[in-house]
Amino acid sequence: MHFTTADTSSNDVVERDFTLGDIPGVLWSPVSGSGHLPLVLMAHSGGQHKRAPGIVARAHRFVTGCGAAVAAIDAPGHGDRPRSNEFEQQIAGLRQAQQTGAPVSTIVAGLHTWLAAQAVPEWRATLDALRNVPELGIEGRVGFWGIMQGTGIGVPLAAVEPRICAAIFGCLGQESLTDAAEQITVPIEFLLQWDDELVDRASGLALFDAFGSTEKTLHANAGGHTGVPRFEIDSATRFFARHLGTGTAPA
Amino acid sequence: MHFTTADTSSNDVVERDFTLGDIPGVLWSPVSGSGHLPLVLMAHSGGQHKRAPGIVARAHRFVTGCGAAVAAIDAPGHGDRPRSNEFEQQIAGLRQAQQTGAPVSTIVAGLHTWLAAQAVPEWRATLDALRNVPELGIEGRVGFWGIMQGTGIGVPLAAVEPRICAAIFGCLGQESLTDAAEQITVPIEFLLQWDDELVDRASGLALFDAFGSTEKTLHANAGGHTGVPRFEIDSATRFFARHLGTGTAPA
Repeated sequence: MHFTTADTSSNDVVERDFTLGDIPGVLWSPVSGSGHLPLVLMAHSGGQHKRAPGIVARAHRFVTGCGAAVAAIDAPGHGDRPRSNEFEQQIAGLRQAQQTGAPVSTIVAGLHTWLAAQAVPEWRATLDALRNVPELGIEGRVGFWGIMQGTGIGVPLAAVEPRICAAIFGCLGQESLTDAAEQITVPIEFLLQWDDELVDRASGLALFDAFGSTEKTLHANAGGHTGVPRFEIDSATRFFARHLGTGTAPA
Repeated sequence: MHFTTADTSSNDVVERDFTLGDIPGVLWSPVSGSGHLPLVLMAHSGGQHKRAPGIVARAHRFVTGCGAAVAAIDAPGHGDRPRSNEFEQQIAGLRQAQQTGAPVSTIVAGLHTWLAAQAVPEWRATLDALRNVPELGIEGRVGFWGIMQGTGIGVPLAAVEPRICAAIFGCLGQESLTDAAEQITVPIEFLLQWDDELVDRASGLALFDAFGSTEKTLHANAGGHTGVPRFEIDSATRFFARHLGTGTAPA
C-alpha cells in the first residue's frame, strides 16, 4: 500500500490518496485522532468513482461525526481504472436494454455479480493493508456503506468478511443477493426510495426481509431513485457511531 | 384550562397537570425556555394513559432536545377518565376476539374510529386552550406523535387540523385510515415493526403508502409489536427539531 498525497486543507480531515497494486483509493481520517480508529469502507454507485460528491460528503461526516477513518476505492472499470473488454460488453448490454425500455434489473444484477467477484477480494485486501499500517491507528471496528452498485458489491462482501460489524445498504432489489443477505447477521440500515423508477418496490422490500440480522432498520423515503434525502447522512453517522464507537477524535 | 400542579424536579423540565373540562392532561416544557415554543401533541397507545413511561420518556427528550412544549391527554375511557358502557362493550368485544384467536384488526379499527370521534375535537380544544395561555409562550409550530391507538386517533386529527405541520405515526395498518391518510400532506415519519404479530405487514405498508405527503419516511425495524428500538426516540427528536424549530430553550 502506497500513500501518494496527503492534504489537510478542509474541516479537520486528512485526505490521503493510496494505491494497493492496481487499485486506487482514498483514505479520510481525523487530524486529531490517533489510535484505535474505527473504519468505514465506502463503495460508490455504478458509473461513479471513489471521489464522487456523495462519497466525499459522507466520508467527511463519518470522520467528524464518528471519529472514524473512511476508505473508498474505485470499483473495477470505474474511476481511474481501465475498462476491460468484458466490462465494456456488460455496459453495452445494459445501455441497449435501457434504450429499448427492457427491464434492466436482471442485467444490473449480472453486472454486479461480475463486479463483486473481483471487488470482494479487493476490498478484503484493502482492509488487510489498512490494518497493517500501524501509524494509521486503524484498530477499531469496521463498518460498510454502499447503496445501488455499492450494495451489489457490499452484500456479498459482508457475507464473507467477519470484520464488518455494521453495514448500510440500499436502493437495490433482491435479484442475485438473497443468499448472501441471509448470511449477514450484523446490524443493518437499509435505504429504499419508495417511488424508485429503477428498483421494484417489492424486490427492495424482499432484500430487506432476507437479511439474517436481528437488528435491521428499513428507511424508505418518498421519492425517486436518486432522491435519498440529505437527513439520511445524519442517520448514517449516528448508526456508525452507535455500532463502531467513536474513535479518539472529537465527536 | 386549569393547571393544578407544577414540578421542576427533573432534568430542567417543568411538568404541569391540567384539566380542560373533563379532559385530564400533562404539559411538559423547558425551565429556561420562554416565548415562541413549538408544541408536540402526544397520544398514548390503547390501554395506556397520558403518563405512560414511553410518553414521559419521549416528552422529556422532545423538551430537552427540541426546546418544545409537549402535551399529553388521556384518551376517552383511559387513564383518569371514566369508562362509559359503550366503551366497556367495545373492549369486551376486543377481549373476546383475542381469546378466540379471531383476527382483531377490524375490531381495533372500529374502536379507534369510535375513540377518534371524541378525541379529535378534544385534541383541537386542547390545542386552542394551550395557545390561549400567553404565559406559556406556545406560539411555534405544532407536531404530533402517536403510534398504535395514537395513530388511530392522530391520522384523523392531522387530516382536519391544519396547525399540525409534522407528525410521527406507526405500528398500525390501513384499516379505516386510508381516506384520512390521503388528506395529510405534511412531513411524516412512520414506524413499523417488521415482525409485528398484531399488525399485518402489507396493511402497515399500505398505510404508509396512502399518506399524501411528499416528504415521508418509513422506519421499519426488525422485531415484534412492542419492540420499537430506543434509537427511534433519537430519530423522532431530530425529526421534530427539523420541522418545528427548536424554541428558545437550549438544544
